[in-house]
Amino acid sequence: MAMPASPIRRLAPYADAAKRNGVHVYHLNIGQPDIPTPQCGLDALKNIDRKILEYSPSDGYLTLRTKMVRYYAQYGIYLSPDEIIITTGGSEAVLFAFLACLNPGDEIIVTDPFYANYMAFAISVGAVIKSVKTSIEDGFALPSVEAFEEQITPKTKAILICNPNNPTGYLYTRKEMLRLRDIVKKHDLFLFSDEVYREFIYTGMPYISACHLEGIEENVVLIDSVSKRYSECGIRIGCLCTKNKKIHASVMKYCQARLSPPLIGQIVAEASVDVQKEYLTDVYQEYLERRNFLIDGLNKIPGVYSPIPMGAFYTVAHLPVDDAEKFCIWCLSEFRYQGATVMMAPASGFYTEPGEGRQEVRIAYVLNKEDLAKALECLAKALETYPGREE
Amino acid sequence: MAMPASPIRRLAPYADAAKRNGVHVYHLNIGQPDIPTPQCGLDALKNIDRKILEYSPSDGYLTLRTKMVRYYAQYGIYLSPDEIIITTGGSEAVLFAFLACLNPGDEIIVTDPFYANYMAFAISVGAVIKSVKTSIEDGFALPSVEAFEEQITPKTKAILICNPNNPTGYLYTRKEMLRLRDIVKKHDLFLFSDEVYREFIYTGMPYISACHLEGIEENVVLIDSVSKRYSECGIRIGCLCTKNKKIHASVMKYCQARLSPPLIGQIVAEASVDVQKEYLTDVYQEYLERRNFLIDGLNKIPGVYSPIPMGAFYTVAHLPVDDAEKFCIWCLSEFRYQGATVMMAPASGFYTEPGEGRQEVRIAYVLNKEDLAKALECLAKALETYPGREE
Repeated sequence: MAMPASPIRRLAPYADAAKRNGVHVYHLNIGQPDIPTPQCGLDALKNIDRKILEYSPSDGYLTLRTKMVRYYAQYGIYLSPDEIIITTGGSEAVLFAFLACLNPGDEIIVTDPFYANYMAFAISVGAVIKSVKTSIEDGFALPSVEAFEEQITPKTKAILICNPNNPTGYLYTRKEMLRLRDIVKKHDLFLFSDEVYREFIYTGMPYISACHLEGIEENVVLIDSVSKRYSECGIRIGCLCTKNKKIHASVMKYCQARLSPPLIGQIVAEASVDVQKEYLTDVYQEYLERRNFLIDGLNKIPGVYSPIPMGAFYTVAHLPVDDAEKFCIWCLSEFRYQGATVMMAPASGFYTEPGEGRQEVRIAYVLNKEDLAKALECLAKALETYPGREE
Repeated sequence: MAMPASPIRRLAPYADAAKRNGVHVYHLNIGQPDIPTPQCGLDALKNIDRKILEYSPSDGYLTLRTKMVRYYAQYGIYLSPDEIIITTGGSEAVLFAFLACLNPGDEIIVTDPFYANYMAFAISVGAVIKSVKTSIEDGFALPSVEAFEEQITPKTKAILICNPNNPTGYLYTRKEMLRLRDIVKKHDLFLFSDEVYREFIYTGMPYISACHLEGIEENVVLIDSVSKRYSECGIRIGCLCTKNKKIHASVMKYCQARLSPPLIGQIVAEASVDVQKEYLTDVYQEYLERRNFLIDGLNKIPGVYSPIPMGAFYTVAHLPVDDAEKFCIWCLSEFRYQGATVMMAPASGFYTEPGEGRQEVRIAYVLNKEDLAKALECLAKALETYPGREE
């Protein structure tokens, strides 16, 4: 099946060329945290004492699922181990949610801009993504009921949210989550909720999980991953949670077909759930400071605007340029400041409609503050000299 | 999307119940080797000294792909590292081959009986499996050109083989591989070749890979996995190899969507490629002896017939019973011999047509000879007393 090329991927050769020419590239374009993995996770890896690295159960080890139950309970999400299925990263959880709940031609509504890989998984299963636009002017708030209902057709089977949001950093309010619940209930849709960034919420506002919503318990499919919270993206451990027994049974068939999730990753993840609270608060504090520093810095650059992201470690910023993709490529191929440049993700790659987000970039704050400062300086200088500047 | 339940899975609750009742179950039903993982792989795991378990490249580490090049060269398969894509097990390689090469409604021809999970991946992408029957009477040899051409329609896009074969243990001869090449060439089809059992070939006959076939280099997609050869099924490392740049580019998009294959598994796999030759010859010798012992033993039981499998570690045997699935369930739920019983996979689960393989089971010889002897004794006793016996 043909898949469109992502504008984000189109930048890679330019970054490679810059590096070959000895230019230092500040990567603001990817969600690979620079935070160390918890020591208890790394120790568990060292202490593996098995003679055979064999298949694990298709739904993952019961010991891991049992620990996840305790983890979720801290957030007021009450699940039993047999409502949790361990997957190969959050990615596989998205794919299996789509496979289990949708038929080819079925429609999923997402808020635009959205995590670009959702589109790839939709294409993989023959589902169609319909989008409801959010905008930087409104801080990427959830659109009205009417905006959703305009997109609902007899083929609509699900709404997919990412909360806190990648790429915008937006966190849905209680009122917005209740609005979603009402739409889901009224039209009997599935609510796929990707909540992999719940540890990264920088506001006093409560975190409302899709699992907190009363009356749609059978409609919710929670998508999760340990990648971001324990900085262990490489172990490929995520999970899919559902109280809907029919969906659970259907997902299990896809799980059985791929035999098992990664064995070693499960061992690391299981140990990581027990990480000391200090690790999580330190990481939280670090991201909070980075966010404040970055958003302050961005909004001080003439012509740049970024809302204050309430969660995750991304923001979508408006730049005073003719075309953010062109600008990002120019930064990599033409621009140098003190032997360095910045790499950002053109936001157009996160929007469905061509032309949307033309003046926006997604910035991930996964660099330490010192590097963030240098990256911001680079960006300011680049915007000063970019020939396609436009207010 | 709805997926049919596998008869193999239907047995699991009976096995669980038997175990709860203290019965020892000899597992002849699964392909989980009991052979230890190479020490060099386990050592590599212990020696991981990373602070962040981060994403790896979407196509896997270049160091691993470079080692794979040397590995394949031993078998006369000449690839460059950029013709190899590391996947999450052989399973993901099958899924991505289907996604990249097929559109919904497209047809794939497989030889019946076949590895049941192929069907799940076909359903996932909306492809249709058409089968060409092989039979125990012919030792599961490749059917004629005519039998293939009977199944070819304008929608046929690929032939999928597993060589050496799971479930039959059959190894395609040079003549048969050339026959496949001619069909593939004449009808311009893809040839998906799952060759994960190439280490397990027990005959003087040469191993002919799909990659050895001249004139269809652009049509071949090799599916592979380190799971079986190094007894490391749990690390989930496989690969997809293709010289077809268009297919490579398409597979890469699916790889990028799921971000990366397992990091730690790649480290273990890379070390395992360097395993001492003695490990592989010892494992080979062990399986050879098991095969000879099992097939001898099976054919000595009145009414039982098994061809001599030339490769892999499975055989499909004919049993003198009314219905092999009923018999397998009966073994688990009613039959006991010295506190034990056997679990086998009803072969009907590997055939497309209902009713096919009704008197056949797949037996995996992944037990040591002592246990194999006891399992065979159990099977013989069970067949003596089974009420549904039928010649």
